Amino acid sequence: MYDLIIIGGGPAGIAAAVVAINQRLETLIVAERWGGQTTYAMQLEEMEGREVITGETLLDTFRRQLDYLDFVRSFDIVTKVLPEEHNFVVNTARGDCFEGRTIIVATGAKPQRLNVPGEARLTGCGLSYSATTHASLFLGKDVAVVGKGRRAQWSAADLARKAHRVYLLAPAPLPDTPLARRLRRMQNVEISEGVEVKEVCGEHFVEGVVVAMPDGEVREIPVKGVFVKLPRTPNSDLVREWINCDSDGHIIVDVYCATSWPGVFAAGDVTHVSEQVLVHIGEGAKAAISAHHYLLMH
Amino acid sequence: MYDLIIIGGGPAGIAAAVVAINQRLETLIVAERWGGQTTYAMQLEEMEGREVITGETLLDTFRRQLDYLDFVRSFDIVTKVLPEEHNFVVNTARGDCFEGRTIIVATGAKPQRLNVPGEARLTGCGLSYSATTHASLFLGKDVAVVGKGRRAQWSAADLARKAHRVYLLAPAPLPDTPLARRLRRMQNVEISEGVEVKEVCGEHFVEGVVVAMPDGEVREIPVKGVFVKLPRTPNSDLVREWINCDSDGHIIVDVYCATSWPGVFAAGDVTHVSEQVLVHIGEGAKAAISAHHYLLMH
Repeated sequence: MYDLIIIGGGPAGIAAAVVAINQRLETLIVAERWGGQTTYAMQLEEMEGREVITGETLLDTFRRQLDYLDFVRSFDIVTKVLPEEHNFVVNTARGDCFEGRTIIVATGAKPQRLNVPGEARLTGCGLSYSATTHASLFLGKDVAVVGKGRRAQWSAADLARKAHRVYLLAPAPLPDTPLARRLRRMQNVEISEGVEVKEVCGEHFVEGVVVAMPDGEVREIPVKGVFVKLPRTPNSDLVREWINCDSDGHIIVDVYCATSWPGVFAAGDVTHVSEQVLVHIGEGAKAAISAHHYLLMH
Repeated sequence: MYDLIIIGGGPAGIAAAVVAINQRLETLIVAERWGGQTTYAMQLEEMEGREVITGETLLDTFRRQLDYLDFVRSFDIVTKVLPEEHNFVVNTARGDCFEGRTIIVATGAKPQRLNVPGEARLTGCGLSYSATTHASLFLGKDVAVVGKGRRAQWSAADLARKAHRVYLLAPAPLPDTPLARRLRRMQNVEISEGVEVKEVCGEHFVEGVVVAMPDGEVREIPVKGVFVKLPRTPNSDLVREWINCDSDGHIIVDVYCATSWPGVFAAGDVTHVSEQVLVHIGEGAKAAISAHHYLLMH
């Protein structure tokens, strides 16, 4: 029986583990690997060294701590989590079965890929899934944002303040929101609705994006950056049947990272709280402290 | 006119500044100094090196970034913050007057000191104001917790799992809570109500605490650690007239660090969210992202 089982090895899960272990909780972390779904590093043609803010640096520090701290980790896939009496039972793909008094769900979200030529090769070389992390590297440049929803709109608005020109490439008409109306009035934002991205071009770095316009015309737009902001799928399947989620599947948490089920906490991209590595580190730490408080009470 | 004015230079304020500057917001931070009210370092007699988790290390990284980033800082005391039309006006002790489109309040909380001989000298040498940060350094030792409220009770319960024996020295009877009832049943917790702490003793490190018992008897309790958990005062005076706070004066925030006043965000010990340096870093980052989103919309 563990005090705490953490599911997921991204920033939130790693921070939760570091804090829980330092609180001397009997902690198990089950993750496919360290690092989560996303890599935060970005290299651009004329960039000297790395970008200034490196959530990666912090995470490296944590990972090194985890590597020499004495606790139990299992690199495996969780297939089932269920409450059982006052505890929780966690099953894994390799057939393990663990019991815990509390759970932190930090399973992240699956970004939807473009699935076009050039995407995988140019990720981190001009192609990004996070405007929050990388927008400021594209000052005065031309960039494209692919998507139509809330996150795509935020990214376009953010980039419009920094980049020279923003092409918002929406696979379908933008939902009519105050932000969408604002974007339509912006001088340096060009919105195309009903377009299909065919390819991301560039030898070593992004140089353009090939799109099919609604009228069938295929054109290449020269850009230095491509931000893919298609809807992500929160990895909440394990708990969606018994824990409150929003309509997109994000686990709903309160300000203490508590979910609707006592003893279960959540942090990071699987929740509705913002996608930034420092925030995820803080949320993971908070979830661990909340789990600790819960254990002291029960 | 600044995009964002951050008030406070502790972990939350520093993290907010780093994120805001990287989002290319015109940012001003006004703080008495870097570092907030608390220092997190602790040195004990037989300790080799520093404790494992060093929120300090992260903060040092941030501080170094701030020192070479190009932005405006003012080492000054804020005397007034008020909304004015759609913006906010910030006045300082040295007579400056700044205008900002958004505000982050990260002014921290004033810990209540014991104000007895030995306290200042032994802070960081066995005397601590944070069980969350330091409890795990006292495995198998005898410790004292001074206080009676919720935070004192959490600290005593936490330490009871780690320390050999916990003396809970309450200046008045404990409020009757489920946690208090639990503490009364714990074998290694000794509760004294109505006691007055007279002195913290020890040459280089804490060796004991002198208390006056309710019957007037003065005794020295030998302990290696003293945790001072008297009620803290959140530094929310600047906004308490116009922003919702709880009965203790903590600014109430939602999961995005938004306060009841649009455009004003809060993070860290001035809010009701937990007191741990990684959490404060995350909350500061989140507040900056929320301020950024607010600016994109207005």
